[in-house]
Amino acid sequence: MASTAPPPTPELLDLTMDNITPNTIRINAQCPDARLRYLMERLVTHLHDLARETRLSTAEWTAAIQFLTRTGQTCSAVRQEFILLSDVLGLSLLVDAVNHPKPASCTEGSVLGPFHTHDAPVVAAGARLSADPAGEPLLVLCAVRDRAGRPIADVKVDIWETDASGHYDVQHEGRDGPSERGVMRSGEDGGFWFRAIVPVSYPIPTDGPVGQLLQMLGRHPWRPAHMHFMLEKPGWDHLVTAVYVRGDPYEKTDAVFGVKQSLIVDLEPIDDATAAQYGVSLDTKVLRQEFVLASEKETAELRDKNAVEALKSLGLNMKLVDHLPVPDLD
Amino acid sequence: MASTAPPPTPELLDLTMDNITPNTIRINAQCPDARLRYLMERLVTHLHDLARETRLSTAEWTAAIQFLTRTGQTCSAVRQEFILLSDVLGLSLLVDAVNHPKPASCTEGSVLGPFHTHDAPVVAAGARLSADPAGEPLLVLCAVRDRAGRPIADVKVDIWETDASGHYDVQHEGRDGPSERGVMRSGEDGGFWFRAIVPVSYPIPTDGPVGQLLQMLGRHPWRPAHMHFMLEKPGWDHLVTAVYVRGDPYEKTDAVFGVKQSLIVDLEPIDDATAAQYGVSLDTKVLRQEFVLASEKETAELRDKNAVEALKSLGLNMKLVDHLPVPDLD
Repeated sequence: MASTAPPPTPELLDLTMDNITPNTIRINAQCPDARLRYLMERLVTHLHDLARETRLSTAEWTAAIQFLTRTGQTCSAVRQEFILLSDVLGLSLLVDAVNHPKPASCTEGSVLGPFHTHDAPVVAAGARLSADPAGEPLLVLCAVRDRAGRPIADVKVDIWETDASGHYDVQHEGRDGPSERGVMRSGEDGGFWFRAIVPVSYPIPTDGPVGQLLQMLGRHPWRPAHMHFMLEKPGWDHLVTAVYVRGDPYEKTDAVFGVKQSLIVDLEPIDDATAAQYGVSLDTKVLRQEFVLASEKETAELRDKNAVEALKSLGLNMKLVDHLPVPDLD
Repeated sequence: MASTAPPPTPELLDLTMDNITPNTIRINAQCPDARLRYLMERLVTHLHDLARETRLSTAEWTAAIQFLTRTGQTCSAVRQEFILLSDVLGLSLLVDAVNHPKPASCTEGSVLGPFHTHDAPVVAAGARLSADPAGEPLLVLCAVRDRAGRPIADVKVDIWETDASGHYDVQHEGRDGPSERGVMRSGEDGGFWFRAIVPVSYPIPTDGPVGQLLQMLGRHPWRPAHMHFMLEKPGWDHLVTAVYVRGDPYEKTDAVFGVKQSLIVDLEPIDDATAAQYGVSLDTKVLRQEFVLASEKETAELRDKNAVEALKSLGLNMKLVDHLPVPDLD
């Protein structure tokens, strides 16, 4: 019978650049959670390999510590600089792709970005999301469907965009409440509609550490004009996406890698009948968009299938526990 | 003749988990600095591989964003939680080992830790660094020498330790100035000496994100009793080290991987002559330590040699520019 006493803490002494990695992994292996143990093993391996491959200098290490500290301290109730960092490093796109693979014909995802808030007002069909007088009026006519084209009713839809100056409400000093935001629900026919303003291209915040990093890298900070949508309903895969206005000068060089061809839309001039039907002026542009959701079940199956195939091709002997890989020690 | 016009911004569209890495590297390659370009290429590669190998979930990504944010926000003028994170992940030990390889017979390095400050008082030989009445009196007699045994005069020596409760001064609320710290210089004979208290083992701060991480990993937060020393003089390799008191219960399980056998010291009882010579009481313990410094030149040569060998064994085609590796594109 195996002993049930916990193993003694592993001994560590005389650690060098050659033995620090297995020893750090060994001491972290005391963790009772197999998934966290695996995450830490991969994190420590990659972090140490990074330092060894680059022969990271003490000055560079210090600069990295200071950069991360400033990034954390730039975060506030209305600003998330670490999400912005993840976005510009391509990590956000990657994590979305891993977690929300799309079955054929489903609407593709895009980056959440750092500007989503939880205080957007719940609004009814036809609401005006932006009161910015400088904005060009836009009528947004949407529908939510499943892969067979059937409407999905009662989907919670979170919408956010910048004002006409290219700033989200949270970027203005003294913000006293949400604007250019709203939460609504799709109707029985899967439809939802609202009034907003034509999105404009804008730079991600350049006054913080992430903006400074882009500048050092010679990268521009611009995002092409877009409007964010987040769609959720139990039983359906959570969809974080955005639609991009065709012809934007930054369409192919989005600073956060968010643009997909299937998400680029044409804004159309309005016709008399539509203007009359929705009670909007004739200088209003129209955006029509259909969102096609995957079920939670089919997304989970596809995610698991992708994971098993990817791990196998990486030569890793893994099993999925709660849909997440851990080493298969059996 | 090659065109000198800058290349156009690389185009990015329809990024997926399979093509995001080369595209992120490609857009970062606009960076004019070859070293930063290489650092970013390795960072992005490892960060993306980590997400792909673990199939990092959105919930885990969110937890990581929140952890990093809390870590940054725990930092203050007197607390550096990111250094602590680097310490417990074994990165600090590794970066020190890469940057300060020791020629034979030189004193080994140890982790700087997050508690060094820049406000320690400059003190003369014989100073009392700790006024903590609960501390056990300690006489510290040191000498600085080169590898041939010759004294090195006028070395700036920075010394810091905890009080008898196991806390650095900066860990006490309402700290009104430095204590258990001092900066002194070696004399003509390479010697320096001071009075302090016998170091005690202590836990690294457990009230922040790093302490919480250790707890989740099933790791204890303790460091064995030690005293920090930092020695610097132009022409000599900067030495960050510590001496550890033999027999500490955490000697072989230091939470930050700092202990080396060569840095473990015996505290001796004092004899009458020594007590009289230094004017200390007979209940004082004595710590005798010799620090052997490498020259800047021999350390740089050893570091370069190690770098070239390591990069070659990793199969990387690199050259050193200002002693730091960059890809050799010639």
